[in-house]
Formats: sequence, structure tokens, C-alpha cells
Amino acid sequence: MKLWGGRFSEGLARDAWALNASLEFDQRLGPQDIRGSQAWARGLQKAGILSADECAQICAGLEAIGKELENHEFIFLETDEDIHTAVERRLGEIIGPLAGKLHTGRSRNDQVATDLRLWLLDYLPELEKAIIGLQTALVTRAEKDMNVMMPGYTHLQRAQPILLSHWWLSHFWPLQRDRERLGQLAQRVARLPLGSGALAGTPFPIDRAALAADLGFDRPSLNSIDGVSDRDFALEFAFCAALTGLHLSKLAEAIVLFCSAEFGFFELSDAYATGSSLMPQKKNPDVFELTRAKASTLIGYLTGLMTTLNGLPSAYDKDLQEDKVPVFNAFDTLTAVLPVLANALGSLSINSGRMQASIDVSMLATDLADYLVEKGIPFREAHEAVGKTVQYAIAKGKSLDALSQAEFQSIHPKFDQDVYSVFDPANSITRRSALGGTAPEVVEQQLQTAKEMIGIK
Amino acid sequence: MKLWGGRFSEGLARDAWALNASLEFDQRLGPQDIRGSQAWARGLQKAGILSADECAQICAGLEAIGKELENHEFIFLETDEDIHTAVERRLGEIIGPLAGKLHTGRSRNDQVATDLRLWLLDYLPELEKAIIGLQTALVTRAEKDMNVMMPGYTHLQRAQPILLSHWWLSHFWPLQRDRERLGQLAQRVARLPLGSGALAGTPFPIDRAALAADLGFDRPSLNSIDGVSDRDFALEFAFCAALTGLHLSKLAEAIVLFCSAEFGFFELSDAYATGSSLMPQKKNPDVFELTRAKASTLIGYLTGLMTTLNGLPSAYDKDLQEDKVPVFNAFDTLTAVLPVLANALGSLSINSGRMQASIDVSMLATDLADYLVEKGIPFREAHEAVGKTVQYAIAKGKSLDALSQAEFQSIHPKFDQDVYSVFDPANSITRRSALGGTAPEVVEQQLQTAKEMIGIK
Amino acid sequence: MKLWGGRFSEGLARDAWALNASLEFDQRLGPQDIRGSQAWARGLQKAGILSADECAQICAGLEAIGKELENHEFIFLETDEDIHTAVERRLGEIIGPLAGKLHTGRSRNDQVATDLRLWLLDYLPELEKAIIGLQTALVTRAEKDMNVMMPGYTHLQRAQPILLSHWWLSHFWPLQRDRERLGQLAQRVARLPLGSGALAGTPFPIDRAALAADLGFDRPSLNSIDGVSDRDFALEFAFCAALTGLHLSKLAEAIVLFCSAEFGFFELSDAYATGSSLMPQKKNPDVFELTRAKASTLIGYLTGLMTTLNGLPSAYDKDLQEDKVPVFNAFDTLTAVLPVLANALGSLSINSGRMQASIDVSMLATDLADYLVEKGIPFREAHEAVGKTVQYAIAKGKSLDALSQAEFQSIHPKFDQDVYSVFDPANSITRRSALGGTAPEVVEQQLQTAKEMIGIK
Amino acid sequence: MKLWGGRFSEGLARDAWALNASLEFDQRLGPQDIRGSQAWARGLQKAGILSADECAQICAGLEAIGKELENHEFIFLETDEDIHTAVERRLGEIIGPLAGKLHTGRSRNDQVATDLRLWLLDYLPELEKAIIGLQTALVTRAEKDMNVMMPGYTHLQRAQPILLSHWWLSHFWPLQRDRERLGQLAQRVARLPLGSGALAGTPFPIDRAALAADLGFDRPSLNSIDGVSDRDFALEFAFCAALTGLHLSKLAEAIVLFCSAEFGFFELSDAYATGSSLMPQKKNPDVFELTRAKASTLIGYLTGLMTTLNGLPSAYDKDLQEDKVPVFNAFDTLTAVLPVLANALGSLSINSGRMQASIDVSMLATDLADYLVEKGIPFREAHEAVGKTVQYAIAKGKSLDALSQAEFQSIHPKFDQDVYSVFDPANSITRRSALGGTAPEVVEQQLQTAKEMIGIK
Repeated sequence: MKLWGGRFSEGLARDAWALNASLEFDQRLGPQDIRGSQAWARGLQKAGILSADECAQICAGLEAIGKELENHEFIFLETDEDIHTAVERRLGEIIGPLAGKLHTGRSRNDQVATDLRLWLLDYLPELEKAIIGLQTALVTRAEKDMNVMMPGYTHLQRAQPILLSHWWLSHFWPLQRDRERLGQLAQRVARLPLGSGALAGTPFPIDRAALAADLGFDRPSLNSIDGVSDRDFALEFAFCAALTGLHLSKLAEAIVLFCSAEFGFFELSDAYATGSSLMPQKKNPDVFELTRAKASTLIGYLTGLMTTLNGLPSAYDKDLQEDKVPVFNAFDTLTAVLPVLANALGSLSINSGRMQASIDVSMLATDLADYLVEKGIPFREAHEAVGKTVQYAIAKGKSLDALSQAEFQSIHPKFDQDVYSVFDPANSITRRSALGGTAPEVVEQQLQTAKEMIGIK
Repeated sequence: MKLWGGRFSEGLARDAWALNASLEFDQRLGPQDIRGSQAWARGLQKAGILSADECAQICAGLEAIGKELENHEFIFLETDEDIHTAVERRLGEIIGPLAGKLHTGRSRNDQVATDLRLWLLDYLPELEKAIIGLQTALVTRAEKDMNVMMPGYTHLQRAQPILLSHWWLSHFWPLQRDRERLGQLAQRVARLPLGSGALAGTPFPIDRAALAADLGFDRPSLNSIDGVSDRDFALEFAFCAALTGLHLSKLAEAIVLFCSAEFGFFELSDAYATGSSLMPQKKNPDVFELTRAKASTLIGYLTGLMTTLNGLPSAYDKDLQEDKVPVFNAFDTLTAVLPVLANALGSLSINSGRMQASIDVSMLATDLADYLVEKGIPFREAHEAVGKTVQYAIAKGKSLDALSQAEFQSIHPKFDQDVYSVFDPANSITRRSALGGTAPEVVEQQLQTAKEMIGIK
Repeated sequence: MKLWGGRFSEGLARDAWALNASLEFDQRLGPQDIRGSQAWARGLQKAGILSADECAQICAGLEAIGKELENHEFIFLETDEDIHTAVERRLGEIIGPLAGKLHTGRSRNDQVATDLRLWLLDYLPELEKAIIGLQTALVTRAEKDMNVMMPGYTHLQRAQPILLSHWWLSHFWPLQRDRERLGQLAQRVARLPLGSGALAGTPFPIDRAALAADLGFDRPSLNSIDGVSDRDFALEFAFCAALTGLHLSKLAEAIVLFCSAEFGFFELSDAYATGSSLMPQKKNPDVFELTRAKASTLIGYLTGLMTTLNGLPSAYDKDLQEDKVPVFNAFDTLTAVLPVLANALGSLSINSGRMQASIDVSMLATDLADYLVEKGIPFREAHEAVGKTVQYAIAKGKSLDALSQAEFQSIHPKFDQDVYSVFDPANSITRRSALGGTAPEVVEQQLQTAKEMIGIK
Repeated sequence: MKLWGGRFSEGLARDAWALNASLEFDQRLGPQDIRGSQAWARGLQKAGILSADECAQICAGLEAIGKELENHEFIFLETDEDIHTAVERRLGEIIGPLAGKLHTGRSRNDQVATDLRLWLLDYLPELEKAIIGLQTALVTRAEKDMNVMMPGYTHLQRAQPILLSHWWLSHFWPLQRDRERLGQLAQRVARLPLGSGALAGTPFPIDRAALAADLGFDRPSLNSIDGVSDRDFALEFAFCAALTGLHLSKLAEAIVLFCSAEFGFFELSDAYATGSSLMPQKKNPDVFELTRAKASTLIGYLTGLMTTLNGLPSAYDKDLQEDKVPVFNAFDTLTAVLPVLANALGSLSINSGRMQASIDVSMLATDLADYLVEKGIPFREAHEAVGKTVQYAIAKGKSLDALSQAEFQSIHPKFDQDVYSVFDPANSITRRSALGGTAPEVVEQQLQTAKEMIGIK
């Protein structure tokens, strides 16, 4: 069945039909299509288009279809063009010609835009839950690994000592921003296009504000043309998803590194590692590599959708049909990856000895410069002096803390006997106690704040 | 000058220097670098690192540099690696070795992240102003063109009659969402990374909350690693810009169409049209074609930046240096295009006769179906009947309103004598009076709401 | 079953398994996996690793599996990690422990790279056939519509008269370049990675040149690390596909325009048009709109894959598993769209009267300038004079050919009585007879060349 | 000056002019514009449009302009819309009204397409030279580092021992494919659009084949509409550039890793490393990080350009003006990065001791399995046995080669006394002597082949 055809003398060619049909992917909107249609029926009743009885019959019929879908008993026909058609066709089978009144004053243009928004409103909380799941795993690790020191890196070079907990939490905040963004997106999703008709609005006296409230939307859209053509929310979702993907990718990249023999910081549990068909010794971080790759795939969805929407000429162009697959795929990708990451993090073994041992003394060079600063030397001069000290030590094949006081003084006279106190990474960490720093007590505070963000006390 | 080198025995090779240097594009951050440094100096003073007098000297020196930059008197040296280096170098020339105290407890990592955020906080209002400028042009047109009827399109096929004002306003709301998004982005921009040091935090007792307030930020960032590595705001800006680009592109695409001889709805003023080097009769909508193309270029900036940030391993990797050009380019593109569009819209001539004449009678087919609905026929049956009527009319080579009543009745008995009243586009438009529809009185309301959004009463 | 696990004390977690498994999409490589494995078995035999009998048993077992796959009788198990595992597992069931000898000296890394290349070598000809199908449709139209004149456009403004056949053929040559590119790509695909092992090469004396010949490849890859990590061919395929997509999109965009009421050049047959659920009169070019949208989706596949491959650190990283879906999707998209387009073109009705009527006289302005050029006036002066003539005619509300000779002469004295001969579009077309121009006899030549390219005499 | 305007009563608005003007970036096409114009003048002469003397004057005038451009003496005016206009304007100043004859039968549409192709034909060899430069650096390193063994990685886990030379060469072949692709692209660039006019061809009897030969093109384009609108070559260039970028990015990523303290394989020379403004000990691989980031920027150029070209409706749309910046930027990016990389590779220090020491015994597990295979055990059984051996060794805290023979035999009876001979990485490497493997003699062969590819004997 298709919802049009009166003016056509010939049916759609088989190959055109196959290209055109969207049921394969839009059947996922079934529950939303039904709720949207029930609300529309109630709106028609209020507007005097349907009698109370007609409305009740339609709603009951739709309810029955919803059950069929839920129980996988709904039989899609080859001739169902899309989910809207399938539902209306089935409604006719159940309640007869009365079904033909449902589409009054409505178009598939406003209907599908409504369905997709409803779907997002239904599923955004699930995505948020999955993000919170990973945030919880990060907080849990941060709590557990509080005493572990590690090298902090910039340019993948050892830079300054930090707490592992601080590092875990550095992956918490990007996810918090992701949730913030999704929350703001949800407000933009919650504007109801239903009642926009094909593009010009509906000619029946539908109370769209009531309709919006009925469906759990904040308010109706304010321009019917924009109502049917606006896919900003889909794009914004694809962007938010890709950005979350980037955050996961950054975490995954670091874990792949930290699991390498060379770093040796983390060991994967067997439950989250895979082997090689050829090399019996291998233990591979596939889960993290795939996470990294999925971020790229998410970028591809965003680019594809953005390009699809670029320069469309009309209120509704069929191109808009390509909006659903990237939205669904992006959602599925993240909700598949997030829990695996959360579980994988929980099952990691931390090699704290190796991490601490990797803090070499040269990482305290900044502290050595700060030491001079505290003796009144301008930082720039201190930096230069310590740079020379580092160069000297390398040339001598010594570590910084193995230089004699005389050697230190030959480079800068302000290096006193107490200079050796600098060479304790724990000191370096503890000194960084301004808000947001790696000192234990501020990391503790940070951890508390993080916990509040996910509702843990 | 460069801000490092103590440990290096050999200078950077000329070609590596050229690749590495960022002054060419980051000098644009000069004013922000100066304000950020002044605030940092004040922070160091409060923390007891600088005396009041030292702080005053540094701030005055920076002020003088700011003036030099403003007056284009600042002389950049070939040896200035970036804007931060240039400013610190010049500060040393002006105030002597004391300049070397400014970088205490700070890194270029937190400095540049601060500068770019400050820049956005400075310039986002300008972008918003440019968007409001286009919104104003749309509202002005909507007001002026209130009585013009035109065909509304879906699939680029004539669909239903609408008011031109309604169409103009359909381009207003996407821009309103853009402003909404930019406003929310601004909140995320306004989190201060300064005081994060290289990655581990600053070891001096800087009051970062006060620092944030001093610089007009909402609050400091909560994790120093995230503080220096977070470029979400840059990406989000690139996304917002690309999305605005899409909205402009959609408008531009339509105007290109409407200016074609075939549509003939609009005529460009000579001030916003260009000619051909070969064909003397041509009057081309270059401005709108370029707008359309710029949207694509904006998508490219987003993709490039997103890919740059994908899978970076450390707290700060040099890759982050590639963040500035796309942000600046995206800003420049939009602030160049938006005012041109606003002016071009204002100078368009509207061929209202042609627009109205393009509303052919078949566009009232939905109204014809609604006519049957009002006679109690289920919409689906009415749709089928009207479809057949359309097919019949085409076969007979007649327009719908030229069918006799007998012909109408042969297709559906409910077609009465009053059927001809349907064939008035003004009726069709007036009937669509639910919120957001094209009926004059709701378009008037919409216009009022739109005006409020841009502060016009 | 999985092909590893000896060193693991615990199985892979269920969620990690689900993320990791690739059988859902890589089962499509079944036939290639079998052919590749048979060739590998023959290679092992030649190298003395397998006896002739063992090789025969393995090959026969694989043949049987191939039949099962072909007949959809192969039963995949939930525990099959990927197609390689499934095939090896089944081989074991059929021929017993001997199956365990097949993977000698081979890794899934070189195996899957081989399979995907084999798949492309198998299917590139199908894609080329589909492209030729559309080229044939274009040539057929060009032949049929040889006498139809139409306006040629630049900037979507009427520019100069052309032949419709010339326009059809302008869409032929981009496809010809696509075929050229695919042919060159095929050469790069035909380099065999098998025998590269996991990354270091195979330790058994496999004659890789013979192996390449056996599998129909041009030659073996020359570096085992590059052999397993090279996905350039997949990217290049994704690019070629996206570029073909752009060509289809350009054609589709024009057809959407030409089918609009305003242009009215083409009418879709009912078999390749769709209707509206609300508006009974609508006849929508969905097929062409979807084609346009698919080009964008193809761009998304390319971007995603390119980003996936960016900056991978090792010879083989699991990220490479994300290579298959975009390759398959790109192939499926094009092979779905191309035949529909070919058929849709064939079924179009051409409104040649409308096309010719749309050639307004101002489109001959270049010819008018050329007229002056032939009288010895420099082109630039002629262009200026004609521009003024056009402006004059607009001001007078006349068409160019309605100006009196006196009016012409008042603008430029070289306008003689014979000036009116310019205003025949057929002349304008015929004059453009340099190679590649729109004059009938050169279009005829062009058509012959095009036919040769697709093997039609 | 602009090349049109006769029909316009009002000048272009200042802001529209600024958006429209392309001189800022297209002046780079100056030399090509001049050569193209000289050839066009010769073509016009042969066609009888210009006298020999006129042609000579025009060519001499253009030659003089070329000299001015070369010597940076050419004065661009604010009123020059683009390079074509600037050159024609200046020609008029030098040779008078005769300059106005040059544009006869030509349009900026075919002119700019010709210029950009000429530019690529001029500069592709430079890009190829830069690629060969990096290939040479790789070959030089491969030759120098021939005896260095290192761990080969998959999934960033130690996999099998390889020769460093083999690894260097694995980065040679992707560049070779890049050159192959650029060579094939050059053939597609070398099709001359000049003589296509605005879109319909030129009405003067230009011998386009001779014109193509004159300008060093292979042949003229065959369809004038395609001639002016085809930007496939620009896209293909952007793709080739992005792919080369990916190859550089992969190399850069590995070098960043290998320069980390944890790997410690390479040390950067001071000439190709940078320091930190805060941390005096840092030595950062900025050059390689930037290389990695530039690959992403190149992907952005490709995406932007591809999207720009998507769905353009006419033969020439102004959107095409956005083609030049990405092409120039992509070229500039690669030709900046490639020589730096080549030099940086040459200046690296190799820590061969550390590399060899990183080959831990477990990396010989595949060889251990092969050992059993050679004793007649099916590989799958051998793999399982060795997996168990690895697990056993880990549990015992021993390295594989420290297991006693009894322990070996307890796992698989075929482990004999000679099993210990397996544990020599040099053996493992030498065994992989099939074509393309890491065995010294085949790497030597590979090196010879590589040298031939870059013309070194």
C-alpha cells in the first residue's frame, strides 16, 4: 500500500520502489509513529473533525498495532512504503474505513519530523545513562587509584608528575560537557512540528500548544515551513555524538598506549582483550582500537548528514529521508561502545610500580626552576639556567639529582644545598594545589564535585 | 626569540622553524594575550609572587604593547615564534629583566587556550550582531511583502499557496536557533583554563576564581589536564558556524532559483548582481552562489578540525596549534557573508504578479480534498478522489477549475456546486490559521514574535 | 570458535565480543575467503608444507563450504568471530584436524586484506557495468533528442542556446573519467598481500608470485608491513564512488529543476515518480532527490574511512576492521542508484516546445557581440555596446530583436540591417562548431566517440 | 576594472565586491593566465580573427606583463576583480584598444579552468619531487640502518621482530603509490577546456587540438559544457594530497611514539625538536605532531571542496570559484611538510641497543609454533600449545626461554631439546625470506627495487 496514487496511471517501477522505500530503517519509529498518531487523533477530536467515538476507535486500533509491533507480531508487507504507510494500512485492516480519517490535515512531512523528534526524546536519556555509566567507571577508578603517581605527558614526552586519579578525571569533564550539550539539544528537539501540514500549516483548528503538551514537547514550532524542513536537531545530535566519540577516542588512544609493553602501565583483563590467530603471545586492546575507529565513523555520519542538508531548495525535499540512518547509527554506536568501555576500565590492572618508576627526575625540571623563582630569580632566567643544567647533566650522562652542589652552583649561584629536596615527585604533585591542579587535596575536591555531577554522594 | 632553548645545543632548522611558527595567524590574539597576561600578573601579585610595583610595571608595559599593536606600530621579528613570545620579548625590551617574571607558574599551554577563549568571548557578540542583521533584513522583507502570495514547494514541485512573508520568516527561525546555540556555547567558552600550567596545575597560590572574574569568565576549569587540552569549544564553534552556513546556503539556493528566468520571482538590484565577461545580457547571482559555496567550505573547516582532534594521546599535543585557523576562517567567512546577504535581500525587487500567477489551480488539490472531508468523507477516500480528478483533468487538458460540476460528480458524488469556491488561493492561505500556518493573521503574530526576538517593538 | 585463546584464562566478555565481532558484515567475503584459502593451500603444498593429498582434502572441504554459502545452507554460529573463523571452524568439522594446517604461515592480517581486494576485483566490473548502463541511457537520449534546442545555463541564468543532446553528453564524460579511475584503481587493488603474515612476512618458502597469478592478481606486494596495513585501495574506492556520486548528483539536481513547473522541460513517467500522502496533485522526483542525497552519504563514507585510517601507529590496528562497511555501502549505493537513473532517463518525456520557447532573444547577446567583432570591432568594445543595447531594450520594455535599426545604430554605428539575422537560436548553435561545441555536426561526432567508449558502433 | 557592466546602471556594492573578488588568491595564476592568453591569441590568429601583427603585439604585451609579475612590479588595482581582469586591464594600458580583441570567443569560464589546469601541470612535478625527496630519505635510512633489529607491532603490541630497514621501507611504498596516482591524475589534468567558451563552445574556427599542443596539453576536452564545469581534477588532486597526508601522518605518529621515553628508539636532533616555555627538560617532536595535524587539515580541504561541488545545477556556477584555495593550500601544505620530514629523518639518532633490547622472547611465540609445525603438528594445534606455554610462563613469572625442557614437554611432547634455538630474534627475522618479508636478503632486494623507483642505482 502507498498513501497516494489517485493521479497516477502506472505504478512505481520495481527498482524505483526499492530505492525509495524506507521501511527497512524507519520501522524503528513504529512506537513513536503510533503515539504521534494517537495524539493527532485527539487533536482532531478537539478540533471537531473526529467524534469522541471515532477518536477512541482510532486510538484503540493504534494501541493494538503498538502491541503487535512490541511483540514482533506485526507483519510488514512488501508493499508498505514506510512505517507511516504500514501503520495506516494496518489500522484500516483493524478498524475499517474510519482509518482514512486519521491523516486529515496532516502530512507525512510533519508526521515524520515529529516521529524522529519523539524518538530522540525517548532515547536521549538512554544515551545520557550510558555516558553516566562511563563517568561512574572513571570516578570509581579515580577513587581506587588515588595514591598512584604517574608521568603526565605533553607532546607524548614526559612532562610533569601527576596523580593517576587526576588523569582519570580529566576524561570525566569532557563527558560532563557532552551531557550538558545533549540537555540543551533536548530542548531544541522538544519543539513540535506536528500541525505544520505539508508545509503551509493545517487548515483545521488544531490546538497545537495542547498537542505539544499531549506529546511531551515544550511547545509547537512557530513556522510551518521551518517545521517540516528543520533537521538542525538531527545534525546537532550527530555533532554531539561525534564529539562524544572524540572523547572516547582520546581515552582509548591513551589506554592503547598505556597497555603497550613500552609503557606497561595498564594490563587488560582477559575478558576485555583479544588474541591473534597467528601469534600465540598476543593480547590485543581491540576494544579500545575499535572505540578509536568508531569516533571516525561518527565523524563520517556527521559529514554525510551535513552535506545532505546543504543547499536543499524546498520546504521538504526527499533528501531529508537520509536523515534517519546516521541518527540511528550514531546512537547505536555510542550505546554499544560506552558500556564496554565502562566495564573494560573497571577490569584493568594498574601497574603502579611501573607508573611511578617512569617518573624520571628530569620531569622535576620545572620544579627546579620554581625553586630558583622562590629565591627571587625571574622565571625566564630560572628556565634558562635549568635548561643548561639539563643539558649539562645529559652531557655528563648523569641524572639531575646526581649532580653535585658545585656543579649546580657553577650553572647558577642560587642553587643551594636544599636543591635536592626538589627531586621528590610527591612534592611536585603536592605543590600544584591551586584549583584544578594535581595535588591530592584538590583532586579529592574535584572527585567530590564529579560525584555530585552523577548523583553519587 | 623563543621561550626555550637552554637545553638545546643547536638551533631549530630553518625549515622546521617555518613549519612550526604560528605568528602569521596567532598574532590576531595579541589583544587577548595582553589582557590575559595582565590578569595573570595581578594574580601573581595577589599570590605574593610579584610586588605591587612589579605588577604595575608589567601591566603598564603590556598596555604599551597593546597600544603598539592597535596602532600597527608593533614590529614583529622573524625570530618571534608566536604571539606569546613576541609579547614577552617586547615586554623585556620595554621593562627589562622584570619581564622574565611574568611567565611564572604559567605555560603557553594554558595561556593559548585562554587567549583563544577570550578571543571568542570578544567576537561571538559580533557574529551574533551579524546574524541579527540578517534576521532584521528578513523581518523587514516579511513586513514589506505581507500581501504577496506565492507557490510553496516541496520536492521543488508546486505544493500549496503560501504568503511570501511566511517564507521569509521560515528563514528567520533557523538563525534564531543559531543564536541560541551560540549563547550556550559562550557559557562553555567562559571557563578559564589559565592556572592549569603545562598540564598539572600551577604550583603558586593563584586564586583562579578571582582570575576568572578578572577576565570576565564564569569560572575556572576544574581539571588542569582537561584545561589545557579541551578544544570542544573550538569544535562546537566550527559546528555552529557550519550550521549557520547551511541556513544561509538554503536561503541562497532558493534565491538563485527565484532569480532564474524560469521562476522570475525576484530580480536582483544591480548593486548585488554581476555580469559576464562574454555574455552581455547576463545578470548573475554570484553573491548567493558564493554563500552556498561558503557553507561547504565551513563544513570542511569543521571536518578538518574534528579530525585533527581525533585520538590525540597527551594533555597537549602540538596538533592543537591547528585549531586557530579554522576558528578564525569560520568567523571571517560568516561575518563577511551575513551583511552582504542582509543588504542584498533589502535591495531585491519582488515580482509579485509573477509569483501569484505561478499558483496554478492544481495546488488547491489538498483544499479540494479538505472540501470532501468537510462533507464527512474520510480523508484517504477524499485524497483518492481528488487524485483521480487531477488525472482526469490532465487527460482532458483542462485545469481543475474548468471541470464541469457533472465531471466532478462523476468522480465523487459529494462534489457539489459550491466546489468552485475552493479555487481561490487566498482562501487556501487563510484557512491555514493554526499556529505556525500561513494564514495572514498568524503570520502577523509570527512576525511580532520574530521582532521581539531581535529587540524590535 | 575463535582462532586464539591458548594464553587466555578467561573468555571475552559478552559485550566486548559483540563490539568486536565482524561476522555480520564480513560474511559477505565468504567466497573470496574460500578462494584465497584454496590458493594458500596450493601455495603451502608447493612449499612442501602440505602433501598433495592434504591439499586436495583442504581444497575439497573449502569447495564444499563454498557451496553451502552459495546455497545459504551454511550455519553461522554465535561463536564465530568473523568469516575467517567460521570457514576454518567448518573446515574442521568437514575434514577434521587436518584443517588446522591451513593457517600455517598465514595471519588474518594478510588474509583479510587479500579477501577485501579479491572482493573488489570481483565486483569492480559490476560497478563499471552499472556505469556503462547509465552512459548508454545518456547516449540513447542524446541520439533521440538530437534536434531539441534548449537554453544553456550558467549561474542558473539563461546563457546561450545549446542542443539537448549536447547537454546529455555533458553527463557522459564525467562517467567516462570515473571508469578510467576505477580501471587504474583495479591495478592497485591487484597487488597481493597474502604471504605477508602478521606483518613480518611468512617463514615458509611460499612462491608469492605464483600465488598472485593463481588468484588473478598482477603481482605480490613488496613489503609485508605495507602489505597488511595498506588500505589505500579502499580509500581510493571510497573516493571514486563519492566522485561518481557527485556526477549523479549534478545530473539529478538538473533533472529536479527541469521537472519543476517553472522549467517544465521534462516530465517524469509515472513509473519513476511518486505522490504525496496529503497533496493529491503532486508528482515528485523522489528518485532524483534521493540520488542527490546519496552523493552526500557517499562523501560521509569517504570522510569516515579517511579519518579512521589517519595516524594509525602499527602495521595492523584493529581500527582497520572499520574499512569494510564503507566499501560495501558505497558499492551498494551506486549499484542501486545507477540502474534506476538509467531507466528513469529512458522513461522521461521531453517537452521540446517548452525548451525551445525558453530560449529568449537576450541569450543571443554574445552572438550580437560576435556580429560586431566580425565587422572588425574589438570584442571588449562590442561587449560594452551590446550590454548597453540590452539595458536599453529592458528600459524600453522591448525584446532585443524588436529594436529598430535606428535604435541599434544609435548605440553602435556598425549595427547594420543584417543585424536581425543574429536572432535565430539555430544559427547561434550552428556557429559553435569548434571541437566540443554545441553545433549539430560536432555533437554528432561527439556522440560517435561516446558510443565507441561503451562499445556501441 | 571589470570585464562587464554595459547592461548595469549601478555599480556593485562595496561589500558584494569584497565577497566576490578573487584576486587575493587567484593572482597566483598570473603566469598561467598569460601563457594561456598568448596561446589563445595565436589560436585567434590561425583562425583569422587576429592579424599576425595584432597577435604579436598582444603576445609581446602579455610577455611584458609576465615580467612585471615575475619582478613583483605589477600593480594590482583595487578595482581588479580577478587575475584575468587585471591582466586584460594592464594589456589595454600597454597596447591600447587592441587588447579588447583578446577575449574574442573566450569566456572566463574556459579561461580559469585552463589556468588552474596549467598551474597543476606546472606544479605537480614539484610535488612529486618533494615526495621523491622523502622517499630518498627513507631509502637512505634503510640503507644506513640495515643491521638494526626492532620489535614489529600490531595493535601497538609487540608482535614479531623485524629489521628497522624493513620498517623504513614500509613507508616508501605508500609514497610510491602516491606518485603513481599523481601521474595518472596529470593525464586527466592535461585535457584542455580552452575553446569551450562560456559553455556552448566557441563560434570561431579555433583549432583546439593545435591549441592543446601549443599549451602542452594532451588533447582538448570533448564537450564544452563539461569543459567549463569539470573540477574532477581539482577534487582528485585534493584526494591525492589528503592520501599523501595520511601516509605522512602514519609515519609521524610512529616517530612521535618512538621518540617517547617509553619507547626510546629514536632521538630527535636539536635542529628538529622544540622546547617548552615552562618545562626546561622538554624536547618535543613538534614537527611530527604538526605533520599529523596537517593530514587532518588536508582531509578538511577535500571534504570542503567535495561538498562545494555537490549538486551544482549549471554548467558554470560561481561556487566553482571556491576550488582554488583548497588546491593551493593542499599543495602548499605538502610541499612545506615533505622536505622538513626528509631532513628530520636524516638527522634522527637511532638507539639500536634499546630497539633490540625491546624484542622480548614472547615475540618468538609464532616461531615456537612454527617449530611444532615443522615437526608435523597442525598449526592450529601448535598455536594452542604455544598459547598455553605463554600462559604458563606468565603464571610462573618466567620468560619463555627460561622454561625447562620438562616444562615444555609437559605442554606438548613434540618440544625437543632443540627448542631453545628458536629464541634468537635474528633467526626469526632470517626465516621470513619469502618475497616482501623481513629477512635481510629480501630487504636488500626490496631496497634495490625502491632505489630504482627513485632513479638511484
